[in-house]
Amino acid sequence: MPRVVIVGAGFGGIAVAHALRSAPVETVLVDRHNFHTFNPFLYQVATALLEPAEVAQPTRSLLRKIPNADFRMARVTHLATGERTVHTDHGAIAYDYLVLAAGSVNNYFGHPRIAECALGLNDLGEALLLRNRILAACEKAVWTDDPEERRRLLTFVVVGGGPTGVEFAGSLAELVYGVLERDFRDLDLDQARLVLVEGSDLPLPPFAPKLQEAAARGLRRRGVEIVAGHVSEVADGTVRLGDGRELEAGTVVWAAGVRAEPLVEELGLELGSQRRVPVTPTLQLPDHPEVLAVGDLAEIQSNGRPLPMLAQVAIQSGAHAGRTIEALLAGRQPKPFRYRNLGTMATIGRYDAVAQLGALRLRGLIGWLAWVFVHILRTVGIRARLSVMLNWVTAYVLLDRPVRLLVDLGRAEAEETVTPPTA
Amino acid sequence: MPRVVIVGAGFGGIAVAHALRSAPVETVLVDRHNFHTFNPFLYQVATALLEPAEVAQPTRSLLRKIPNADFRMARVTHLATGERTVHTDHGAIAYDYLVLAAGSVNNYFGHPRIAECALGLNDLGEALLLRNRILAACEKAVWTDDPEERRRLLTFVVVGGGPTGVEFAGSLAELVYGVLERDFRDLDLDQARLVLVEGSDLPLPPFAPKLQEAAARGLRRRGVEIVAGHVSEVADGTVRLGDGRELEAGTVVWAAGVRAEPLVEELGLELGSQRRVPVTPTLQLPDHPEVLAVGDLAEIQSNGRPLPMLAQVAIQSGAHAGRTIEALLAGRQPKPFRYRNLGTMATIGRYDAVAQLGALRLRGLIGWLAWVFVHILRTVGIRARLSVMLNWVTAYVLLDRPVRLLVDLGRAEAEETVTPPTA
Repeated sequence: MPRVVIVGAGFGGIAVAHALRSAPVETVLVDRHNFHTFNPFLYQVATALLEPAEVAQPTRSLLRKIPNADFRMARVTHLATGERTVHTDHGAIAYDYLVLAAGSVNNYFGHPRIAECALGLNDLGEALLLRNRILAACEKAVWTDDPEERRRLLTFVVVGGGPTGVEFAGSLAELVYGVLERDFRDLDLDQARLVLVEGSDLPLPPFAPKLQEAAARGLRRRGVEIVAGHVSEVADGTVRLGDGRELEAGTVVWAAGVRAEPLVEELGLELGSQRRVPVTPTLQLPDHPEVLAVGDLAEIQSNGRPLPMLAQVAIQSGAHAGRTIEALLAGRQPKPFRYRNLGTMATIGRYDAVAQLGALRLRGLIGWLAWVFVHILRTVGIRARLSVMLNWVTAYVLLDRPVRLLVDLGRAEAEETVTPPTA
Repeated sequence: MPRVVIVGAGFGGIAVAHALRSAPVETVLVDRHNFHTFNPFLYQVATALLEPAEVAQPTRSLLRKIPNADFRMARVTHLATGERTVHTDHGAIAYDYLVLAAGSVNNYFGHPRIAECALGLNDLGEALLLRNRILAACEKAVWTDDPEERRRLLTFVVVGGGPTGVEFAGSLAELVYGVLERDFRDLDLDQARLVLVEGSDLPLPPFAPKLQEAAARGLRRRGVEIVAGHVSEVADGTVRLGDGRELEAGTVVWAAGVRAEPLVEELGLELGSQRRVPVTPTLQLPDHPEVLAVGDLAEIQSNGRPLPMLAQVAIQSGAHAGRTIEALLAGRQPKPFRYRNLGTMATIGRYDAVAQLGALRLRGLIGWLAWVFVHILRTVGIRARLSVMLNWVTAYVLLDRPVRLLVDLGRAEAEETVTPPTA
């Protein structure tokens, strides 16, 4: 039976495996994590609203319903398209068809210093690390007697006013001013400063101006300062803007964009915008018709413009890649991919979201209810759905966030030796 | 107002703060984590049943109801009892009364090699690390073609047949043979070997012989081998027993006992069994009446024998330490501590537990229902209670464990360079 290897178990990769579930192929999904992440909820992990099990599902449990699919946990190290083989840190896998669905990584636009000093929000590990940093910053602020240092520790700068930056900033404001405020009786959290840096005047550039204004108002009402500007440098504790302004910040969150997973550089092709792989309308590589690319790492043209890097594009292109492979196997001509824009949404916070669904524009409570409805439906599994609802009721109705835990992975130092201070 | 510093926010420390909530003192709790852990559930975290937020609660949220208590996150580095000051990695705190409630660490009986090669199950970070190791062992086993290596990867040795070892082994058996078996279609998990090494012939030595036998039967029925023996050495991949027998094991879990947190060595006192601090019947240090010790790190005599290191002892001694301080403040004679044994329980697995409550001995389903009832009541907070129940229904009724996620904390390597294999 021909073997289809899918690199990446995100929205795109899972959609491919699902589309091929009745095809005469064996499918092998390869991912360096053993779980599939529901990325739209990562900001809720970072702001102590949800736990990992509510945003991630074991890939193997998703594949239980797909009898011809197998999973291999590994990091892909090399794509040998000549030998039709994928090399990983655990071994090699030969393929008849290859689907690249490895997604994206944070785009630091070639600034290694930013990569070192800022925290991303692009996978589950990053979201947990960010949650720990936010909570640790407040705990450290309690200890300091220096008001300058305290102010720096309590300044959070979010770079990028797209949906990720806006959703995170709004949720962070509610965490800091609503929940942590009551936790830290010995700290005046009104001193905390939350800044969203956005290149244009208003956040959420792809949305209609009225919704952008609603989002800006919603963020300001929650205590987020919106600063128009471009970040030129992030060094320890300082964010420098293009016009020379500086912000002293204890925590810098990088939500200014992503680019294709660097693995695509292996292909030796000329890459497109955000270093994505240009594909044919049937999602194949021009000179390797047995290799397909979907989701964030593929540059798919639609009406003469590349499609944005969105979950919906990944899901739809993944499903289409499956259909292309089925056509190739059957000796039929594969059909070109057509993207159906189902609309976009972004939450600002409790009872407040903006949504643009075709000609429909929603905001405030109505937008938020639409967001809740769509996202509860898209959450996989009954348990996760109930668990997400339980946490949302706790957060939005009871105004609490029980997940504000600073958990470090690892062993307790058992045979630790205690050294008395030299003083 | 006199200041009471409490080192450790476990069962003991929280009980002290609670007991002093109306006393004319200010209380400062110091802990290196920002959360209180419900230790009896740690094995359920390690076996993918519960998430961190179900076994841990932010310490600050527990203190919201205690108006005179403050929290400081720090690691205590030195106890300067002469100057009545506690030194931490973030600064020093002076005290009028000090309560040591820092609990225990894994006891490797002076074998540094065991500490390196085995995993403990004594705090939340360790439990998460262990969960990752179990899942990673199965994922690695899929990749190997060598049957010897596969067998080694799928051998899990649990050292110690006390409640921790038994509960973990039973739950691990249900995870491996019940849940992972269905996940790993490409792996014969019947090959997996689960071994519990216990010094005496039967597990759970402190329980009545009938219950010990029931526990042993329950474990064997679930697929756990019980080996009588003492572990003399753990090296990479091998557990050596005192009589020369060897077990090849991919994962070794150390549940053979704990000892007092090494911080007590700072006191310069002669320590008791498990390196605990001997205290007077009023829980004070003989030569420092303003210093008290409670819970796992205190050696409290009862009827001529030291009390065991149990959650109940910590809770009751913590509450009593609060009363001792109140008496000292009021110029009254503090009363001696009397321990009320409320009984002990251990789960073997689904619908199966043993419980010894006074003269009452329960096992099987009845024991398990008693265990569920007591532990749901003891879980703090309505949200956590509902969430725990949701996960138990998923695990025990639907036979699934949605938390089987291998989550590594940290940033995705964004600017990662891909090196092709040299082959």
